[in-house]
Amino acid sequence: MKQIQSFFLLLFGLSFLLSACGESEYEKDVVAETDGQHTPQYALVIHGGAGTIKPKKMDAQTRVAYEQALEEALDRGEAVLREGGTALDAVVAAITSMEDSPLFNAGRGAVFTHEGHNELDASIMDGKTHAAGAVGGVRKVKNPILAARAVMEKSPHVLLTCAGADRFAVEQGLDTVDPSYFYTERRWKSLQRRLEKERKAQPVGETLEEQEHKFGTVGCVALDQYGNLAAGTSTGGMTNKRWKRLGDSPIIGAGTYADNASCAVSCTGHGEFFIREAVAHDMSARMLYLGETVQQAGDYIIHQKLKALGGDGGLIALDRQGNIAMPFNTSGMYRAYVKPDERMVAIFKEGE
Amino acid sequence: MKQIQSFFLLLFGLSFLLSACGESEYEKDVVAETDGQHTPQYALVIHGGAGTIKPKKMDAQTRVAYEQALEEALDRGEAVLREGGTALDAVVAAITSMEDSPLFNAGRGAVFTHEGHNELDASIMDGKTHAAGAVGGVRKVKNPILAARAVMEKSPHVLLTCAGADRFAVEQGLDTVDPSYFYTERRWKSLQRRLEKERKAQPVGETLEEQEHKFGTVGCVALDQYGNLAAGTSTGGMTNKRWKRLGDSPIIGAGTYADNASCAVSCTGHGEFFIREAVAHDMSARMLYLGETVQQAGDYIIHQKLKALGGDGGLIALDRQGNIAMPFNTSGMYRAYVKPDERMVAIFKEGE
Repeated sequence: MKQIQSFFLLLFGLSFLLSACGESEYEKDVVAETDGQHTPQYALVIHGGAGTIKPKKMDAQTRVAYEQALEEALDRGEAVLREGGTALDAVVAAITSMEDSPLFNAGRGAVFTHEGHNELDASIMDGKTHAAGAVGGVRKVKNPILAARAVMEKSPHVLLTCAGADRFAVEQGLDTVDPSYFYTERRWKSLQRRLEKERKAQPVGETLEEQEHKFGTVGCVALDQYGNLAAGTSTGGMTNKRWKRLGDSPIIGAGTYADNASCAVSCTGHGEFFIREAVAHDMSARMLYLGETVQQAGDYIIHQKLKALGGDGGLIALDRQGNIAMPFNTSGMYRAYVKPDERMVAIFKEGE
Repeated sequence: MKQIQSFFLLLFGLSFLLSACGESEYEKDVVAETDGQHTPQYALVIHGGAGTIKPKKMDAQTRVAYEQALEEALDRGEAVLREGGTALDAVVAAITSMEDSPLFNAGRGAVFTHEGHNELDASIMDGKTHAAGAVGGVRKVKNPILAARAVMEKSPHVLLTCAGADRFAVEQGLDTVDPSYFYTERRWKSLQRRLEKERKAQPVGETLEEQEHKFGTVGCVALDQYGNLAAGTSTGGMTNKRWKRLGDSPIIGAGTYADNASCAVSCTGHGEFFIREAVAHDMSARMLYLGETVQQAGDYIIHQKLKALGGDGGLIALDRQGNIAMPFNTSGMYRAYVKPDERMVAIFKEGE
């Protein structure tokens, strides 16, 4: 009996050694760091912005269009993860899909600045290495998230801005487009309404308060089969913005953060509040230092901290065990997630 | 006897009520929130950058010049606090003093970009309200810290960049200067040396590694007599920077943060690392969530976290009880502080 036991122990030991030799460095990390817990093979969460989105105000056709666009982005991101791609690749796949859709305020379909331009912001972060890249105020790059990734991987910098960021993207051979590519009638009309209001009335400081508060920023967080997290965000910013204003989306620590030790986060909402509260990094800090779950940290920041300050918005967050939080304090948030055995797409509050 | 006691109690009660009526909202905060602890009347800490600053390499004349410039900035900031001004006003007074000095890499004396321009970044934050303002890549504003403050107080935004930020500053009536104002021979030569190296050798990514690593960013944190904290940072960025790169100085949460509940922070160093680790917000988070002191949080982040990543630099931090930390992992950091009964100015490591 004892001999049989020893034989099996030896067999087990050998097979362990053999399998360990075949593992990549990433895979060893997962085995070591998840410490025997059940790890899902992968998970991907996206948002298409939080804001005043109410079921009564949205016709069936529009709703279906948004749901289809979210499904499409999920599909693109999931395909990468299912085939063994990295979280970074999945984030880029899902976000480019939403940037290419005219429905969201990112890439094609971005809102217009006061002067009638589209100025785009994006950022991306790798939870394993803390590498990060971002662009603010680009006008030529077709997919700002690709420019953010190029900054991360092909420059020694984190944040490039304005014409400089466009120049960098061109040097990197990224696809550029004519400004007319970003044009959508809906966003143009939105600017005209804002300008009309401004002409009739109050100083700039106030008009921003009464704006529609529809923020169509897009974002994605992903967990890959190697146990690594990544996060990305892309936006056109606020309608009628001026003076080359940047919100939280291109700011690592505000709109985007990823750390394998805590979570990956992408935010959407009134960016100034998200910068002042360093929301994306605060998510990570609350988990690391207070031991909060991704849901506890998200709920506290969105429903208590930001709500008390008047900061509208929401976020998506994902930890290394595949736990997901998607809190928002607005009436709706375009959001969706996928895991190997689960899929969800939603726009309004639960039950609406 | 009892009557006498009652009389004194009444007298005490009345005097308390009267003094309470005369108190501003700020003063009441201090009494309430410091909970009987000894609060210093005020404190102010400044830095003029961390980097490769060694006693052997600095002649006596240069050393005296830097010390005088630090003393001057301390004097300007302290005068504000002594006379009952706010922490924000003191931060602005100390930083404009250093921006106006050609010795520091901020305002006059800023380093040059690859194209031979000076592009300036600054940010400021109010610990009481979490209001914040920042500018990135301005070329015309004489004192970028004033532009950051104007963004905070006169716009609904936090971060304005490039030509847009300059336009905003002009609209606000801030002093602008001809680009030649920022020129110093020393910084120009520094750019020429870098360009020469680049022509002879390697791709951009590598040359940044072998640069001098002298970061002359300036910053200030202050505690006023009303118990409020504020922080500010101003810089010319990195010699030979391109593509409108922004470092941590204009990023709230990276280079600058202030929260009355924790501390005020201003950072200096290799900005990309400070952004990726959200250093300024992390200081605040470690104090709030882990209960660390300003010294413990500062030491951990600078000497362990950043050091391990290869992130050179330092920070100054100050809490509401007047506790100060000034950690740096480089060979030196221009730094100084003042309290009603203490004053210190230093450049090298202790004992050097």
